[in-house]
Amino acid sequence: MDIRTQKTFEALFALEDIREVLRQSLPNVTNPEEEHSIKEGVDKVRKILDEIENGTGTPQVRKIADSIDIRSREETYINIQPIQAAGRLTPEARKALIAYGDGYSTCDACRKPFRLDKIRTPPIAPFHEQLASFLNMDVARVVPGARRGFQAVTSTLVNKGDSVIVSSLAHYTEFLAVEEAEGTVKEVPVNEHNIVTADATAEKIEVVKQETGKLPVLIMIDHFDYQYANEHDIKGIAEVAHQYDIPFLYNGAYTVGVMPVDGKEIGADFVVGSGHKSMASPAPSGVLATTDEWAPKIFRTTQMVGDVTKRKFGIKEVEMLGCTLMGSTLIGMMASFPTVKNRVHNWEEEVKKSNYLIDGLLTVEGGKVLSEYPRKHTLSKVDTSRNFDIIAQGHKRRGFFLSDELSSKGIVGEFAGATRVWKLNTYGLSWEKVRYVVDTFQDIAEKYKLQVNGENDSNGSK
Amino acid sequence: MDIRTQKTFEALFALEDIREVLRQSLPNVTNPEEEHSIKEGVDKVRKILDEIENGTGTPQVRKIADSIDIRSREETYINIQPIQAAGRLTPEARKALIAYGDGYSTCDACRKPFRLDKIRTPPIAPFHEQLASFLNMDVARVVPGARRGFQAVTSTLVNKGDSVIVSSLAHYTEFLAVEEAEGTVKEVPVNEHNIVTADATAEKIEVVKQETGKLPVLIMIDHFDYQYANEHDIKGIAEVAHQYDIPFLYNGAYTVGVMPVDGKEIGADFVVGSGHKSMASPAPSGVLATTDEWAPKIFRTTQMVGDVTKRKFGIKEVEMLGCTLMGSTLIGMMASFPTVKNRVHNWEEEVKKSNYLIDGLLTVEGGKVLSEYPRKHTLSKVDTSRNFDIIAQGHKRRGFFLSDELSSKGIVGEFAGATRVWKLNTYGLSWEKVRYVVDTFQDIAEKYKLQVNGENDSNGSK
Repeated sequence: MDIRTQKTFEALFALEDIREVLRQSLPNVTNPEEEHSIKEGVDKVRKILDEIENGTGTPQVRKIADSIDIRSREETYINIQPIQAAGRLTPEARKALIAYGDGYSTCDACRKPFRLDKIRTPPIAPFHEQLASFLNMDVARVVPGARRGFQAVTSTLVNKGDSVIVSSLAHYTEFLAVEEAEGTVKEVPVNEHNIVTADATAEKIEVVKQETGKLPVLIMIDHFDYQYANEHDIKGIAEVAHQYDIPFLYNGAYTVGVMPVDGKEIGADFVVGSGHKSMASPAPSGVLATTDEWAPKIFRTTQMVGDVTKRKFGIKEVEMLGCTLMGSTLIGMMASFPTVKNRVHNWEEEVKKSNYLIDGLLTVEGGKVLSEYPRKHTLSKVDTSRNFDIIAQGHKRRGFFLSDELSSKGIVGEFAGATRVWKLNTYGLSWEKVRYVVDTFQDIAEKYKLQVNGENDSNGSK
Repeated sequence: MDIRTQKTFEALFALEDIREVLRQSLPNVTNPEEEHSIKEGVDKVRKILDEIENGTGTPQVRKIADSIDIRSREETYINIQPIQAAGRLTPEARKALIAYGDGYSTCDACRKPFRLDKIRTPPIAPFHEQLASFLNMDVARVVPGARRGFQAVTSTLVNKGDSVIVSSLAHYTEFLAVEEAEGTVKEVPVNEHNIVTADATAEKIEVVKQETGKLPVLIMIDHFDYQYANEHDIKGIAEVAHQYDIPFLYNGAYTVGVMPVDGKEIGADFVVGSGHKSMASPAPSGVLATTDEWAPKIFRTTQMVGDVTKRKFGIKEVEMLGCTLMGSTLIGMMASFPTVKNRVHNWEEEVKKSNYLIDGLLTVEGGKVLSEYPRKHTLSKVDTSRNFDIIAQGHKRRGFFLSDELSSKGIVGEFAGATRVWKLNTYGLSWEKVRYVVDTFQDIAEKYKLQVNGENDSNGSK
């Protein structure tokens, strides 16, 4: 870790120690001992600031709670990890974590009817309205991860033995959500371009109907899948779903928060997004949005009555198990939201950077992109078995040679040891960083005598 | 907010802005503009430090992301809120939030078999082992809130129409978890002291058997309930459960993390705890622990196979939906854990403070405690309808007069406007703070000419 990054963490931590003195003191009173601690803390931070300014000093704090390393991946490196990119927090979200870390920090002003999405201070209720409108859906709830959104829908719609249509590139959490509801997944085959089409979905519905004697009860398809990040024909699929009167869940784990998503225009009955994957939010977080038609079913309130006490908890929603995301997880999501709302309009620029990087990788002879090309997403799957992996075969570090080379240049996030088929994500990287990554890959290629084609073109566009 | 607290937040936020410059820069290179920003940031923090030292200055930052107030409840006030007390973060947890805020921060070193509880850096795998051993159970998983622990168990054990025994003081999330699994709750009546006994549980089992023709499939009882925080006979109840061969879920939302809990000694098949309620952890977090006997059922791995692709996701656990608590929520929990493990041994001292406060409140003539007394817990329900509420009747601010008086003395967390029956919690308050709270209540009583008895005694024990 760069010493200035190290010292920035140390300053933050020293301020948390000052804050703890303020927490322990009586209201508006500090005793001499506390005053002394604050003074000491302030002096400590002053020294650290000098070190940040001068880039000097040695690490004083190595671990949190004596066991957890300080994580500085985003400060120290350019991170091309496939699923981390769009979950990186905004500075505002990090400030929210600082101020709202305590477990029930969201609940200070919780009043009747005592439900998270009704709280107005902090502005949780308006956030829920904005979320629904952002997705052009009628109602939205926050959930602890997209998977908990799938679960709420499958738990409501799927009974034992029911079929649910998913993509052949479906994420494993969709499998689990169906299995947990005792249903069975039925995969739509992809075409030769690894795309799920409306026609293939219609065919699969017919197959399921024939095989099981019943229509599937739900169709859930990823707009962009997690393997190739190929774009699937969700609008066409939604139309097919509606022809059969089957509800359609739009899995926006890789879209909601990075590109514009219009649920009504898509024809989605449910839109699910992931906070920590694509909304610059702490984990676990996500969103489940639906229509006025489906809201009373998915967000149905409890009907259970205590047989002895006759207690009812009327407004609590069964599938949400009452309140969902309390504390800093939700407030972090809210703090990033203004940025997230805006950034979806930069999607085309993000895709340009993605293509620039892939083009740069393809200049290394033998390189292939396995995702659809040109790229429509910032996540891509590449195949370097005919260039970098050939080097790896003869290198004493084998596949790790590439990770070694990359990390020595400040790039991390590719799967360590993988030089054949692997994924990367350019989301949120500046042009400067994207160019740096391309240059670095080309430099490594040249170092190992791999042919780099059209390098001038690539450099020329800098 | 006290100006020093305000300035501490401003310094923390300014450091986050410096950190953002480091994040945006190329690896090991900063351009002149970035250098300038860092320099400006450092100077800004220096000025703020002067203000912290001198207690001077005016607030410069009022909101996070232009809409969210800075929360300083724990710095500015003594917080007696009933459910927030034991969820307050330790300084180590706050540092963990700073370092691990990014959504997938836990997943940098995720390797085969790709499951959260197997990750060794940060030490998530050992933490899971420690959690199980802390509760004296065989296996533990983290979950996004205690309610998600209940849900995993009910979803596994409860089928449509099954009965689940709960307490007449059961938390609403138990109702919802049973309802979500399409079961029915059957409440055990409390005795005249608002206690759930083993005998009453046995009787209820017989009633259910008679009425439905089937034994209940699960018994879930809170060790201390959320209404009175009375202690219920969980050991006796566990014994009854085992006599009928019904699994027993110990709801430790108000115990795990504040007092020693020995699952095996209790005879629990499942122990559920809440991170944000009692483990000084960010929300939503919790723990579900079980025995070697039950683990293969509750933590069963997926059996679903893709019909087209033949994909299997073998090691992913169905009820956990794969990975559960990523990012800062989990790391915050881990960072507090060493403190939490130790603090459970101070439980007797915490209960002493609770009784000291209740005794102090009872010196005000007409006051009553509705919870069992002497207190065995730090959460208590009191009835002030015959003292403070009588004042409220004639006060122009009505019930809010008490909140006004308390907050003017730096005490918050009682339910604003409530002067009849309300709850408070002393957990984690220093003796100094507990005495201050008692003195303040007595001062308010005297100001409004309520009789305060034995005040000398109370003061004498200071």
